[in-house]
Amino acid sequence: MNALDHDPGIEAFRSRRPREECGIFGVYNHEEAAKLTYFGLYALQHRGQESAGIVVSDGCRVTAHKDMGLVPDIFNERILEQLSGHMALGHVRYSTTGSSLVANAQPFTVKHCGHSLAIAHNGNLVNARDLRNRLESKGSIFQTTMDSEIVLHLLARSLKRGLEQAVLDMAVKVEGAYSMVLMTEEAMIAIRDRNGFRPLCLGRLDSGYVVASETCALDLVEAEYIRDIEPGEVLIMDKGGLRSLSLPEGGRRSQCIFELIYFARPDSNVFGENVYGFRKRQGRLLAEEFPVEADFVMPFPDSGSYAAIGYAQASGMPLEMGMIRNHYVGRTFIQPSQSMRDFGVKVKLNPVRELLKGKRVLIIEDSIIRGTTARTRIKTLRNVGAREIHMLVSCPPHCCPCPYGIDFSTRGELIAARKTVEEIRAFAGLDSLGYLSMDNLTRATSIPREELCFACFDGNYPVPVMEELSKFSLE
Amino acid sequence: MNALDHDPGIEAFRSRRPREECGIFGVYNHEEAAKLTYFGLYALQHRGQESAGIVVSDGCRVTAHKDMGLVPDIFNERILEQLSGHMALGHVRYSTTGSSLVANAQPFTVKHCGHSLAIAHNGNLVNARDLRNRLESKGSIFQTTMDSEIVLHLLARSLKRGLEQAVLDMAVKVEGAYSMVLMTEEAMIAIRDRNGFRPLCLGRLDSGYVVASETCALDLVEAEYIRDIEPGEVLIMDKGGLRSLSLPEGGRRSQCIFELIYFARPDSNVFGENVYGFRKRQGRLLAEEFPVEADFVMPFPDSGSYAAIGYAQASGMPLEMGMIRNHYVGRTFIQPSQSMRDFGVKVKLNPVRELLKGKRVLIIEDSIIRGTTARTRIKTLRNVGAREIHMLVSCPPHCCPCPYGIDFSTRGELIAARKTVEEIRAFAGLDSLGYLSMDNLTRATSIPREELCFACFDGNYPVPVMEELSKFSLE
Amino acid sequence: MNALDHDPGIEAFRSRRPREECGIFGVYNHEEAAKLTYFGLYALQHRGQESAGIVVSDGCRVTAHKDMGLVPDIFNERILEQLSGHMALGHVRYSTTGSSLVANAQPFTVKHCGHSLAIAHNGNLVNARDLRNRLESKGSIFQTTMDSEIVLHLLARSLKRGLEQAVLDMAVKVEGAYSMVLMTEEAMIAIRDRNGFRPLCLGRLDSGYVVASETCALDLVEAEYIRDIEPGEVLIMDKGGLRSLSLPEGGRRSQCIFELIYFARPDSNVFGENVYGFRKRQGRLLAEEFPVEADFVMPFPDSGSYAAIGYAQASGMPLEMGMIRNHYVGRTFIQPSQSMRDFGVKVKLNPVRELLKGKRVLIIEDSIIRGTTARTRIKTLRNVGAREIHMLVSCPPHCCPCPYGIDFSTRGELIAARKTVEEIRAFAGLDSLGYLSMDNLTRATSIPREELCFACFDGNYPVPVMEELSKFSLE
Amino acid sequence: MNALDHDPGIEAFRSRRPREECGIFGVYNHEEAAKLTYFGLYALQHRGQESAGIVVSDGCRVTAHKDMGLVPDIFNERILEQLSGHMALGHVRYSTTGSSLVANAQPFTVKHCGHSLAIAHNGNLVNARDLRNRLESKGSIFQTTMDSEIVLHLLARSLKRGLEQAVLDMAVKVEGAYSMVLMTEEAMIAIRDRNGFRPLCLGRLDSGYVVASETCALDLVEAEYIRDIEPGEVLIMDKGGLRSLSLPEGGRRSQCIFELIYFARPDSNVFGENVYGFRKRQGRLLAEEFPVEADFVMPFPDSGSYAAIGYAQASGMPLEMGMIRNHYVGRTFIQPSQSMRDFGVKVKLNPVRELLKGKRVLIIEDSIIRGTTARTRIKTLRNVGAREIHMLVSCPPHCCPCPYGIDFSTRGELIAARKTVEEIRAFAGLDSLGYLSMDNLTRATSIPREELCFACFDGNYPVPVMEELSKFSLE
Repeated sequence: MNALDHDPGIEAFRSRRPREECGIFGVYNHEEAAKLTYFGLYALQHRGQESAGIVVSDGCRVTAHKDMGLVPDIFNERILEQLSGHMALGHVRYSTTGSSLVANAQPFTVKHCGHSLAIAHNGNLVNARDLRNRLESKGSIFQTTMDSEIVLHLLARSLKRGLEQAVLDMAVKVEGAYSMVLMTEEAMIAIRDRNGFRPLCLGRLDSGYVVASETCALDLVEAEYIRDIEPGEVLIMDKGGLRSLSLPEGGRRSQCIFELIYFARPDSNVFGENVYGFRKRQGRLLAEEFPVEADFVMPFPDSGSYAAIGYAQASGMPLEMGMIRNHYVGRTFIQPSQSMRDFGVKVKLNPVRELLKGKRVLIIEDSIIRGTTARTRIKTLRNVGAREIHMLVSCPPHCCPCPYGIDFSTRGELIAARKTVEEIRAFAGLDSLGYLSMDNLTRATSIPREELCFACFDGNYPVPVMEELSKFSLE
Repeated sequence: MNALDHDPGIEAFRSRRPREECGIFGVYNHEEAAKLTYFGLYALQHRGQESAGIVVSDGCRVTAHKDMGLVPDIFNERILEQLSGHMALGHVRYSTTGSSLVANAQPFTVKHCGHSLAIAHNGNLVNARDLRNRLESKGSIFQTTMDSEIVLHLLARSLKRGLEQAVLDMAVKVEGAYSMVLMTEEAMIAIRDRNGFRPLCLGRLDSGYVVASETCALDLVEAEYIRDIEPGEVLIMDKGGLRSLSLPEGGRRSQCIFELIYFARPDSNVFGENVYGFRKRQGRLLAEEFPVEADFVMPFPDSGSYAAIGYAQASGMPLEMGMIRNHYVGRTFIQPSQSMRDFGVKVKLNPVRELLKGKRVLIIEDSIIRGTTARTRIKTLRNVGAREIHMLVSCPPHCCPCPYGIDFSTRGELIAARKTVEEIRAFAGLDSLGYLSMDNLTRATSIPREELCFACFDGNYPVPVMEELSKFSLE
Repeated sequence: MNALDHDPGIEAFRSRRPREECGIFGVYNHEEAAKLTYFGLYALQHRGQESAGIVVSDGCRVTAHKDMGLVPDIFNERILEQLSGHMALGHVRYSTTGSSLVANAQPFTVKHCGHSLAIAHNGNLVNARDLRNRLESKGSIFQTTMDSEIVLHLLARSLKRGLEQAVLDMAVKVEGAYSMVLMTEEAMIAIRDRNGFRPLCLGRLDSGYVVASETCALDLVEAEYIRDIEPGEVLIMDKGGLRSLSLPEGGRRSQCIFELIYFARPDSNVFGENVYGFRKRQGRLLAEEFPVEADFVMPFPDSGSYAAIGYAQASGMPLEMGMIRNHYVGRTFIQPSQSMRDFGVKVKLNPVRELLKGKRVLIIEDSIIRGTTARTRIKTLRNVGAREIHMLVSCPPHCCPCPYGIDFSTRGELIAARKTVEEIRAFAGLDSLGYLSMDNLTRATSIPREELCFACFDGNYPVPVMEELSKFSLE
Repeated sequence: MNALDHDPGIEAFRSRRPREECGIFGVYNHEEAAKLTYFGLYALQHRGQESAGIVVSDGCRVTAHKDMGLVPDIFNERILEQLSGHMALGHVRYSTTGSSLVANAQPFTVKHCGHSLAIAHNGNLVNARDLRNRLESKGSIFQTTMDSEIVLHLLARSLKRGLEQAVLDMAVKVEGAYSMVLMTEEAMIAIRDRNGFRPLCLGRLDSGYVVASETCALDLVEAEYIRDIEPGEVLIMDKGGLRSLSLPEGGRRSQCIFELIYFARPDSNVFGENVYGFRKRQGRLLAEEFPVEADFVMPFPDSGSYAAIGYAQASGMPLEMGMIRNHYVGRTFIQPSQSMRDFGVKVKLNPVRELLKGKRVLIIEDSIIRGTTARTRIKTLRNVGAREIHMLVSCPPHCCPCPYGIDFSTRGELIAARKTVEEIRAFAGLDSLGYLSMDNLTRATSIPREELCFACFDGNYPVPVMEELSKFSLE
């Protein structure tokens, strides 16, 4: 059944580079910790569909369950009942193409000197390869290819000084993006790197605490939002209550703008900003910047939906749903034959011929990465008779890869790294194409520009990347 | 896993009453018949998520594969390759609560006198129980509890007169709703009952033919729509080409209006009417009939989306997406505890607090069946601070069950059978509630009123129902 | 997984000719009916390893579970608990090469006119094809390719006259070998054809009754053996207790000698004869008939073990186990490559080189069907240095196929139908070969010669076979 | 399915103490390395039925597959094809009661400093707990609870000095029993501890080499036996051919006598001794030491079979098979109810009533560990009427646990540690009981007495056991 994939030490080395974007959810001190975490992960499923896991502690014993797949496929009532304890830590991981491995699922847990230590990590370390080499040369044996495991080996080597000190020692060594939560039998520790690349927020539920990547997970479990974990903060939850340490100074805040543009759910607040509102403002500013002549505006479901609403409201242009999403499309389906080339697009999004025929259409998109998806969709619209097709993108062109945990293609695959806007327009088969300017993107949020990371647009990397970008992965 | 469910003869008798709405897709004379059918079923998945199956013939040998679950979970490349032949017949079946059985999956196939005979059926016979009793008393042994099996037993008993005559003999005996396709090693026969309750259309693809419940399936496989199978038509596709017979006269056209309102996909044309346009007209007529004062209009995704667009365009009121759909919600998830009662709603649809707080909201819905879903969703909106909540439904109140193949609750469960509009409003916790009038519903379509079935609204049953409504099921 | 095998009507027609030898176990009136049946089937597992099933009744409701595989793989505690009732009927079916189908597993159960009817059948009808053609032409639809289903259709067509009369009506029509047990909600009926080809015995357990193919199953559940069901007897167990009817006269007793020679377990009594003792007598008579000169006598485990013991005791020659059976060989294993040709033999039976080297070996076998297995094993013995290899077979040469339920190869595949004893010796690579004479075979049992069937040795078929032997199967 | 068992770090800590007896098979330089290993493991399956695995190398890349279960259930053609390479290392592990874990399956493989290192280990380290504590306190993180993992961590910490030196360094630190094979991308290294507790032999196949726990595995793959790996030998197979190093001096040869008595297959040679012949000699010496009066001698299949043959030949007493083994008994079956207590025994071994009734029976057994199995079997024989039951055991009483890799019960569970022979006889319900004397046991083999370990009989432990015997396990 699980042919050839049982051996973590070996098999992990075969998998393709994973997409690092992930979701974290932790509960401290609640009698239904595992069940709450199950629902929390459900709300964060958009942050990772490859694998999911929950680790619980009842104060003495740590129990874990994780597997490949979606949250509802991995857990059931019986499993949740066995995950008993008042602390729980959960994680969802991004779907990769190619083979993925349960050994790389998180939370990652080890037993060391009689104690359990679990980690759930969102982000990407930029000096992982160097750290691993050093550790291996001292005799450490790694079980996975995840950079997250490095954190545990660093902790294991200074655990004699106590867990809190070991965390501070570790933080001096690792570089890059990490929002992470550690759990032992008795304590939970939430840590956010000094730049604050990835979100992590804190809520209160009854007499306990909840940490989550996005507020939509707090909403679902009806926890009250308290505040974000601060960049550079180490928040300890244990019998003594809540305590905060600070990581050594260094760096500036550089929170990822792409979380707001694309990654986070519209019903979340991220970095203190409401995502739905932000995206509608992107649409309004697009309407200001590009007053296109068209019969109606439409998104491709669901990527540009909220910016399209913003555009429609600002411009007075009617909003339509020109492509209908098939809600039953699973993640895998059979490839059409050569002669059926367009089936693949239309299985997911079918154009409404009666609506589109002879019309001038304006599409709002949230991003163009490689350009191929846009190109095939636009061809499909042309085939049913759309007369003109214009597209506006709610951010500037992506021309730089991200070393901090979002799996953009390498620079070579980013269409905007190789082509001008006019060339992209021609490639995609559009009548016109516009990108929101960097200034307008900045205006769409109330977060100060200097506290955000725009590296994927401008190549301005807030943490130096010493390793080759193509070598972020340990594989 | 397969505990206790292998024996069709016995186990079938335990299952709950099935929901009869289904989807059919057939291909005659195309070398990729099975693969086309796979994609056709994908497009029709909304008509049935319980089970799916494909039967193929290469002219000599009939091969079948069917199982419980969704189309992409049941078929893979290897299976499709084994389904070789130039004719294929596919079927999707509605999801039921309670146990379901692969024995009840369709197409249902038997081997009789050395020949194979397969049936795919959409609709519900109203004299099934009586027919089965008669057949059993003559020695027939049934394998399933489906009314569709009765059709095969009737055919088997007059097959000596030839298949075409056997079809006409059978059609004299069965009463109720049936769009069905039969397949033998050599021929495919599409039949639609004289009332034409359920849709069935014909397309051309290369040198072959395609039959499908809805045109969206023709679109996906790029078949050209020719015409609907006529009510009372028997369309034979075989080596001689296309031939049409007529069922004996009787009844009047009474095509199901609820296919347009709710069941069909918006990108389909059904009974010659474009569904997207019809639903937008419902919304426009609602705006005319009920000029509500509100800050914005919103659907619950995705039930009232197109009527909401129509309302917004007619009224000038802004359209918003006040509840965000979680795209990763599977069909089963773990029940929240008592103390987590609202989680179940919010797992699927999370309200955007920042948008709703303090606002006057108008919701457009396509129907209210039992009222409980609306009630919990409205409570969720109240909890995040919506100030006023109004609802408009794009059809009249449902007060009568449907014996022709849509699994409405029994009369007792239909809220509109027991309560006035004002009582429903109070039950759901709304500030105001309006239903589109029957006249306006009729105006939304260009199909003559007398060719439609409105029985679920007005109790005017075009085919008399001799058996108790609660006994439609054979179980 | 279950690719392409869900449709009984179609798929069954692909499977290869089944081996008809089977085992039956029924319990009437015992509170642990299902669990006893589970153990009974365990004891009868040697009679069929393809599939197994148990059907129970609690007097009102009939519940079934069956699947492909071995008894312990199909049932577990949970399943047995769900099979509640005081009556149970179980069946094991022979393993076939090629694909097999759960639809062909037994007991086979149908629901007819509101009642359940289950059948477990051991044996083979010789007029199955003719009966099925007649039934189909009257409109009966078959679900499987088993001749056992014919019995149910015959019963269904005269059930109006009562079940007992229907059984007598059916028995007039079917010809060939059948030990069978029928079960309804309320009664259990054991039937043995007039010739008594296959065994079936009756036991008492507490206040209930047990029927079984062999006494070893009675032993295991600690039931007391009462008597065999008589050839031509219909034994009814119901609320009225035990009642016996007689099938109409016809035929003579002709009990299968091969049950004693090969098929039954050595710890069973079959047709009133103890199998272990019978086989030892075969060995003693072989020693009388063939006083071979050798260093030791050995069986191939476990086929000739008991005759080898008999030979050793009669001759004073030492008994050795020259080939060691690997107890962990499952039914499927990977084929060796061309260069590994002998691995397949040795995986199952490894020769003990130290024992065999330079020795004169006498092997006792229970039968030679195609000769190929013997040939490869003998080659293996030669390879480790056996000096002389002699073989004695404990019955005469098999030269005729069996139409009554044992899956001998067709005549063409039976080596003794094509070759003389000397030719077989040469083919197998033996130094000498002898077969027990028919007279000595008869002397090994106390059953009168005229009450046994020796058709596979002498072609004397007690029931005329109207259909071609190659057409026994319905496929 | 795999509920709660995915996390090796945590879950392993729950499993019961594993039985350490295992089997190893390695192939160096053969193009069908994986397939040969598959067959080799098949032949060694009796040494471990819990899990199995194969790791291959093609010189550059190491690939692994392992799982719980039997060899034929774990591997198939497709999997073996993916295991391509000219080197392969396989392992089977003993079945445990209680939960077992795939994480504890072997070969255990890690990726370290860019290289793969696999280990397959038979035996038990006696200072495992102490070594692990030391390693963890230096920051090593363990993935399993196996003592075999300690070997890899020790190697990792001195790998800078080269693999050969690292092996020698490691061997100074570990104490106890180990026959093990290491594999890297390029080399295979076979090691046997200085005492030589467990067997390991070397064979030649074409231009490659094979190492195996027993010669029966060489026989199956048709490799030519060269010699045993010597106690204290490190045998390196790499591009340079075959090279031998010696572990530092220490200890005396103490090869496990129980391998010959019980564990090894009768068709193997172990420590240079043919097992079949050894066991027959045990039986002959028993006949000399205990000339019992009985009607016949019988083994319980298959434990005492060969000694019983020896006894029969020496004494002239007839050999019978008084209990028939059910070949279809799987490893799990449903527990009989209280009222069915004897079913459990009889499901496996059914007595032949006709043979046993009124007879004086002599049973030859290879060992009595807890005495309970013997007791129930003897009761079963009494129940079918055996008049006298005598038993002879082919070795002395077991009164001491084994720390070197055989999972005898703790001393408290060994019946001979608590009871005299007379008390054991009474407990088992025997008429008489005798054990082969230590002197006669020694006479049965040609291996010098001082080169064997008899610790389980006489408590004379050749390697001091510093840890409590109950603490051998790391859990």
